[in-house]
Amino acid sequence: MEQVTVDELDDLARGAAILGTGGGGDPYIGRLLAAAAVRRHGPVRLTALDELPPDAVVLPVAMMGAPTVMLEKLPSVEQVAVTARTLAAHLGRTPTHVACAEAGGVNSVIPVAAAAHLGLPLVDADGMGRAFPEIQMVLPSLYGIRATPMAIADEKGNRAVLDTTDNHWAERLARSVTVDMGCAAAISTYAMTGAQAREALVPGTLSLCAELGGLVRTARAAHADPVAVVVERLRGRRLFTGKVVDVSRRTVTGFARGEARLAGTDGDGGAELVLRFQNEYLVAERDGVIRASVPDLICALDRESGDAVTTEALRYGQRLTVFAAPADPRWHTEAGLALAGPRYFGYDIDPVRVHA
Amino acid sequence: MEQVTVDELDDLARGAAILGTGGGGDPYIGRLLAAAAVRRHGPVRLTALDELPPDAVVLPVAMMGAPTVMLEKLPSVEQVAVTARTLAAHLGRTPTHVACAEAGGVNSVIPVAAAAHLGLPLVDADGMGRAFPEIQMVLPSLYGIRATPMAIADEKGNRAVLDTTDNHWAERLARSVTVDMGCAAAISTYAMTGAQAREALVPGTLSLCAELGGLVRTARAAHADPVAVVVERLRGRRLFTGKVVDVSRRTVTGFARGEARLAGTDGDGGAELVLRFQNEYLVAERDGVIRASVPDLICALDRESGDAVTTEALRYGQRLTVFAAPADPRWHTEAGLALAGPRYFGYDIDPVRVHA
Repeated sequence: MEQVTVDELDDLARGAAILGTGGGGDPYIGRLLAAAAVRRHGPVRLTALDELPPDAVVLPVAMMGAPTVMLEKLPSVEQVAVTARTLAAHLGRTPTHVACAEAGGVNSVIPVAAAAHLGLPLVDADGMGRAFPEIQMVLPSLYGIRATPMAIADEKGNRAVLDTTDNHWAERLARSVTVDMGCAAAISTYAMTGAQAREALVPGTLSLCAELGGLVRTARAAHADPVAVVVERLRGRRLFTGKVVDVSRRTVTGFARGEARLAGTDGDGGAELVLRFQNEYLVAERDGVIRASVPDLICALDRESGDAVTTEALRYGQRLTVFAAPADPRWHTEAGLALAGPRYFGYDIDPVRVHA
Repeated sequence: MEQVTVDELDDLARGAAILGTGGGGDPYIGRLLAAAAVRRHGPVRLTALDELPPDAVVLPVAMMGAPTVMLEKLPSVEQVAVTARTLAAHLGRTPTHVACAEAGGVNSVIPVAAAAHLGLPLVDADGMGRAFPEIQMVLPSLYGIRATPMAIADEKGNRAVLDTTDNHWAERLARSVTVDMGCAAAISTYAMTGAQAREALVPGTLSLCAELGGLVRTARAAHADPVAVVVERLRGRRLFTGKVVDVSRRTVTGFARGEARLAGTDGDGGAELVLRFQNEYLVAERDGVIRASVPDLICALDRESGDAVTTEALRYGQRLTVFAAPADPRWHTEAGLALAGPRYFGYDIDPVRVHA
């Protein structure tokens, strides 16, 4: 994919919701923002990761906070652009490219809006290959790239530039500021050179999102099984098909935490799946046995439409197919697991991989 | 007073503790820092407020957080200097003067240390004429001077620059960051020109602190009553002499809140005084009748030595004399009371003035 036009945005948002593994916010909100920005400023050029000049000045942008809140307090493209401008001014550098910090949900689409608004190309890549809930949980952390200086802004005009001793401190301070700002804020973080980006980011993310969205759309039109094509494309494994019978969630310290219970249908009749989440789906447990866990992707799709169901959209009675797909292998290194393995999230288990 | 040498620091700290009205942190910690800095860098020149050039670039510095924490986690002069340098870099201005945001406690002495360290003169003034617990509670707020951009730093190397829509938002974000930083952080805020400072600050604060400290020292040496000379110099009124019989305090949302009960002695035998505080003493209630309240100063001094007793140093059995003294008259305007009157602190009363 060489550019993002309004036509691509539907597929892109649909695919982004899948890679969002239940988190990253509702991509349809981001799609609206991106569509408005692209209509106004024209299509956004995509730069492939391996075509990025080594001296490029890359500014990732994202929304931070509880997706549940973003449904009610919509982000604005100006708010996101402000963070990029604030960070660029602080750095005294002129940005050449916008990038995605995470794949998935609103954070795959918000950077499209920001790139259009700022008149900059967007790097076809992201920092995770999926969505994760905390700032330090990006592959650039494994390469010693600093989250700070980072800029954070709300929709009211409040801004901050943080400069911390490590990326966990960036998460800690930014999370408190986000909570103060109303549990949703725009951030620009992990400013990096093109050379750093080529090493540390996951290539092709936006193209993959658009491709996944297109596969779902095509399968649906052909009355084929959209979930099957997504699972195949991501080299994943179907875990469960069932009906949501219970959801509990609470918004704490800026996160949407909780769990959902599914009663099996189709071939899974009589079985139960528990999905535990903190913004994203983190652990899938079938009849008491953990079948998949972070850092691998756990995705819940509407059984019929193939649309991803985010954790904040989970409702009683939904019929879902849950599958797992392998994460970028760097997440399975010791350093990767220390950042985003199950133990970091409070589960005292070894990671359960899709293809162990 | 034209300069602050090591010799002046004892008097200055002793007087600052009095104007601190129980808050502002322990000035003896600040005095140690200031003494070390003055020994190393030489005396700090004082600039009288009416001699400040209109185009001066004035950077107030202070410690923010719970004084109870500052007793254990000592501030460092580097940490304070970092905030001034960070703010100056953000503004793109070269500071010409350091100033005190508040009179009282550690925040009268910390700016001496910072000025010595930075090699800058210190303005003989402050933003309150006393101590108050929140950032927006300074007279510059009444003149439309912005608390932000402000810099905040901890002792570990974490920093932030905040830029908010108003001074209440500055307080809100900085408070959360302070809590994250361990309930005590250095700040540089209310950057202003010399012309703004001459209008908005309270003149002569540091000289007054040194004078008060000297009066106490002299009275003590002469076996006179140190409390009486302080009350007279501040045109105040003695409220109560008694023994502390109960103290309750809790550190919540970055503040030290609580109350102390005193059983009367001397002429006050049989009576009881309740002192309510939030970092500073806010309300003095004698036998159920409020005798003084913010914005006027309520001070508790050791009955014998005349040394101020901060709210975090209150202990069972202390024998104290409590007095009230009039605040800068600008605090008694409608706008001043909205910022720091009793109702702001949650007491549904009209302010009780020392000389009504």
